[in-house]
Amino acid sequence: MKVTELTATSKNQSSANRALKRRLPGRLFNDKDSRFHASLDNLRLSCLPNAVIRVQEAADVGVVLQLATRYGIPVTSRGAGSSATGSAVPLKGGWALDLSGLNQVVIDPVARIATVGAGVVTADLQAQVEARGLFFPPDPSSKKYSTIGGNIACNAGGMRCVKYGVTRDYVLGLQGYLADGSPFQFGLPLKKYVSGLNLRDLLIGSEGTLGVITEANLKLISKPEKRWTGMFAFKSEAAALKTVVALFKDGVNPSILEFLDRQSVGCAEQYTGKPIFEGQARSAILLVELDGRPAEVREQRKKLLALMENRTAAHREARTETQAEKLWQVRRTCSQSMFSLADTKLNEDVVVPLEKQAELVRYTLALKKEIGLATPTFGHAGDGNLHVHIMYNRDSEADAERAKAGIHKLMQKVVELGGVITGEHGIGLAKSPFMSIQHSAAEIAAMRAVKKALDPLGILNPGKIFDAFEVWDHEPVDVRLPWDHR
Amino acid sequence: MKVTELTATSKNQSSANRALKRRLPGRLFNDKDSRFHASLDNLRLSCLPNAVIRVQEAADVGVVLQLATRYGIPVTSRGAGSSATGSAVPLKGGWALDLSGLNQVVIDPVARIATVGAGVVTADLQAQVEARGLFFPPDPSSKKYSTIGGNIACNAGGMRCVKYGVTRDYVLGLQGYLADGSPFQFGLPLKKYVSGLNLRDLLIGSEGTLGVITEANLKLISKPEKRWTGMFAFKSEAAALKTVVALFKDGVNPSILEFLDRQSVGCAEQYTGKPIFEGQARSAILLVELDGRPAEVREQRKKLLALMENRTAAHREARTETQAEKLWQVRRTCSQSMFSLADTKLNEDVVVPLEKQAELVRYTLALKKEIGLATPTFGHAGDGNLHVHIMYNRDSEADAERAKAGIHKLMQKVVELGGVITGEHGIGLAKSPFMSIQHSAAEIAAMRAVKKALDPLGILNPGKIFDAFEVWDHEPVDVRLPWDHR
Repeated sequence: MKVTELTATSKNQSSANRALKRRLPGRLFNDKDSRFHASLDNLRLSCLPNAVIRVQEAADVGVVLQLATRYGIPVTSRGAGSSATGSAVPLKGGWALDLSGLNQVVIDPVARIATVGAGVVTADLQAQVEARGLFFPPDPSSKKYSTIGGNIACNAGGMRCVKYGVTRDYVLGLQGYLADGSPFQFGLPLKKYVSGLNLRDLLIGSEGTLGVITEANLKLISKPEKRWTGMFAFKSEAAALKTVVALFKDGVNPSILEFLDRQSVGCAEQYTGKPIFEGQARSAILLVELDGRPAEVREQRKKLLALMENRTAAHREARTETQAEKLWQVRRTCSQSMFSLADTKLNEDVVVPLEKQAELVRYTLALKKEIGLATPTFGHAGDGNLHVHIMYNRDSEADAERAKAGIHKLMQKVVELGGVITGEHGIGLAKSPFMSIQHSAAEIAAMRAVKKALDPLGILNPGKIFDAFEVWDHEPVDVRLPWDHR
Repeated sequence: MKVTELTATSKNQSSANRALKRRLPGRLFNDKDSRFHASLDNLRLSCLPNAVIRVQEAADVGVVLQLATRYGIPVTSRGAGSSATGSAVPLKGGWALDLSGLNQVVIDPVARIATVGAGVVTADLQAQVEARGLFFPPDPSSKKYSTIGGNIACNAGGMRCVKYGVTRDYVLGLQGYLADGSPFQFGLPLKKYVSGLNLRDLLIGSEGTLGVITEANLKLISKPEKRWTGMFAFKSEAAALKTVVALFKDGVNPSILEFLDRQSVGCAEQYTGKPIFEGQARSAILLVELDGRPAEVREQRKKLLALMENRTAAHREARTETQAEKLWQVRRTCSQSMFSLADTKLNEDVVVPLEKQAELVRYTLALKKEIGLATPTFGHAGDGNLHVHIMYNRDSEADAERAKAGIHKLMQKVVELGGVITGEHGIGLAKSPFMSIQHSAAEIAAMRAVKKALDPLGILNPGKIFDAFEVWDHEPVDVRLPWDHR
C-alpha cells in the first residue's frame, strides 16, 4: 500500500479539525511524524490519518465522536498499534484516536476487580496486579506493548489461554462511547449481570467498529504459587500432537502447552548454530508449563513425565527461573529466525479441534511441497491454535502469488477441519478475504446489520472486517516498531 | 392477567397454521391443554398462544421461522417454562415454539466439550457429564426441570457461580436460526474463536428476542474430587456479610457461599417448629461449600474455620453427604416457608458489590418498616447476588400498591449502590419497568437498534425486555407447576 490519504482533505475534515481544536485544545496533532506513527500497526501497511487525536481523559472521546458524527469523519481507535491484522490502520483517513493516555489503574483486592483505562499496557497491569498476589492471565505475545483497550477490542489470547481462557473471560464491565458520542456502560464491576441485551460481549472483539472503549472492569484471580517448565523433543509432528491429546485424556491441565514443528526448530537451530537437543537435531517440540499449588504441580509433573516416558526422544526440565527463561527463549528464537527463509511472513492464527492438529500440520507439509514455500508452524497446541506461517520473498512476483494461493487453500482446509480462520488476531484487513469461507451469507448479513445498527454512518474503523482487502497487493512500509528485535 | 388471546385469530394466523401443518406434519398442536401449558412460565401469568409447535428436529425451527416471517406470526421459544420473569410467556399470542424435543447429548471427553440440544434438561446433562468424571457447573435452582436452551437464553446462574461462573462462561458455540429462518453457527466447539462480530454472546441472555438456539457446544471441566459443607450462625446480617468480605480477603475460595437473613431463617424456624441452631433462634446464616482436591479442601476448611472462630455464634459441619443434604434443606425450607407470611412473593435477584451487601440488607429492613411488608432476603452472597423478596397478600389492594412501590424503591437503591437489577433471572416481563433505572436512554436505544437489526419484523418473543409491563396489575393463574412443592 502506498502511503496515501483516502478521504483526508475534504471541507468537512477541515471544519471538523477546527471544531475539535476549539472544543478540545491541545489534543489534535497533524504533524508528519504523528500522522505516520498512527498510520500503521504491526501489519505494516501505512495509511495516513488526516490528524491524530491524543485523548487526555475519557470524556474527550465523547466529544470526538459527536464531532465525527456531525462532520462524517472516519475514526480509527488505537492503543500501541501492535495489531497483527491492520485493525488499527486508519484505512479511510480521518482521525486516528490515540487512547494511550487513558492509563489509570485501580485495583480492588477484595472484590478482585481492576478498573483499567483503555491505554494501560498489559504487562504494566499484570505487574501491578501480581504485586498484590493476584493474577490477570491473558498474555498476548505483544503484552509488553499492547494496551488493554486493544486486547479487549481484539479479544486477545496468548499462551496461557489453555488453562485460563481469553481476554473476554476477564471482562466484567466496559465504559466508553457509542458512534454518536453517547456514553455507555455495558456490564458493571459485578460477578453477575443479565440486564438487557449483552452489548458488552458484542463490543469485545469488534475491533473498534461498534464503539470506543475507554475503561474496563477486569476480573482478577489468585496468582499461581508455583510454576514448572519442561521441553520435550519428538521424532515427528504427529508424535508430538498425539501426545497433546493423550495428555488431556490423562487429566494433565497445563497452563501453557506450545508446539514447534520441525521447520520452525530447524530455523532456530540454523540461527543459533546448534541443536536444541543434543543428538536430536530438527525434532518437533512441546513446551509445557504447569502451575498452581506446589502439591498440585508436583502431582501434575509426575503424571506428565510418566506419560512422556515412551513418547519423547529427549527432554529437559527447568529447575530455576533462569533455566525456564532459556526454554522460552527457544520459542522466541523460532519466531525470529524464520526470516532466514524469506523476507516476508504471513502469520495465520488458525484454530482446529485438538484431534485435528496432526492433520493440519500434515497439510502444511503438503502445501509446502505444492507451493514451494516454507510453512513453519508453531503455537498454542493446548487450544488447537497453531500459527501457520508462509514465508516468501516479496520481490518475487511468482512467490507472492504462490503465498497468496497457499493462504487461501490453508483457510479452506481449516474450515473443512471444523476450525476457525482466526483464534486471537481478529479479522482486521488481513483476514477479511476469508470471512466468506468461515461464515454463511446470512451470518455475515446479520453481523453487518448489527454494525449498521450501532454505527449507521459507518464512521467507526471503516473498511475493516467486512470489506475484502487483499493485503498481498499492497507494499508494507519498512519501519522499525518497538517490538522488533531483528 | 386474564387468559386472553392478543393477536391469535387473524387470517394470517390461519394461513400460517395451514402452511405449517403442510410443511411439518404432526408438529402443530392447538388443543386447549397444549395451549394452556405453553401459555405461562414460573411467573404464572398466562397468555394463550394460537398454537404450540413441538419441534422434532433442529431444521423444523428454520421452517417455523420462515413461515413466521412470511405471515408475521409472533414466535415465543420455550423449554421447561421455568423462567421467573415471564420470558417464556407468548405475550402477543402466535406460536409457542416448544424446543424440549431437541434432547440429544454428545460428550467429547478429550476436548471436554458437550454438544447439547436446546431441550436437554440441565440436571440430565450434569448427570451424564459427571458419570465421565467431568463437570458442567451452572446450577440454577430449577436445574431438575430447566433446559440448556433456556439457561443460555437467560444466561442462568445458580449457587456455584461464585467459583465457577455463569452459563455464558461455558458456551463455546451456538447453532440455531435467525428471525427469517436462516441457520446460524456463532462460535464453534473450539477454545479460541475471534472471527467476525461476536453474535454468540449477544444471543446468550437475549431471552429468545434475537434468534432461536437449537444446539450448543459447552465447555466441561474436571469434576471436583471432594466437597465439604458448613453452616454458620451470626448475631446479625451485618456480621454475616462482613464475614463474606473477610473470607475473600483471606483467600478462601468457596464453591458456594449462601446467605440467609433473620427474616428468612425466622420463616423456616416457624415452619419446622424448631430453631436451626439450638439456643440461637433467628440468627443470620452463612452456608459454605468448599470443593476441589482433598488437600485443597482440607487447607481451605482450616482457613475458613480459623476466620470464623471469633465471628460465628454457632456452626455445624457436614461429615457425610446425608448431613450436607440436611444443611441444604435449611436453605430450601426458607424459600418455601415464606408463604406463611403472605400469599404472594416478589423475588428480585439483584446484585450489588460485595462490600455493599450489608447496606442493601439494612435497606431491606428500613423498607420493611416503611411499607409494612416482610422483606426476607437470601441468596448468593459470594456474588453479591441477593434475592430480596417482598411478601404481600394479593387480595389487599393496599398491600399490592405498597409492594409495587417497595420494589421500585429497591431497584433505585440497588442501582445507587452500583448494582444491577437482575443477576440471573433476566428482564422478561417482570423486570421491564426497571430497564430505564439501570440503563441510559442511549444504551436502551442501542439495544433496541440491535434488536431491530436482527428481528426487523419484531416476531421474536415480542413485548419482552423493552416494553415496560406492570406484572402487579395482572392476576397470576392458580396452577401447580412441576417444581411446586408446597
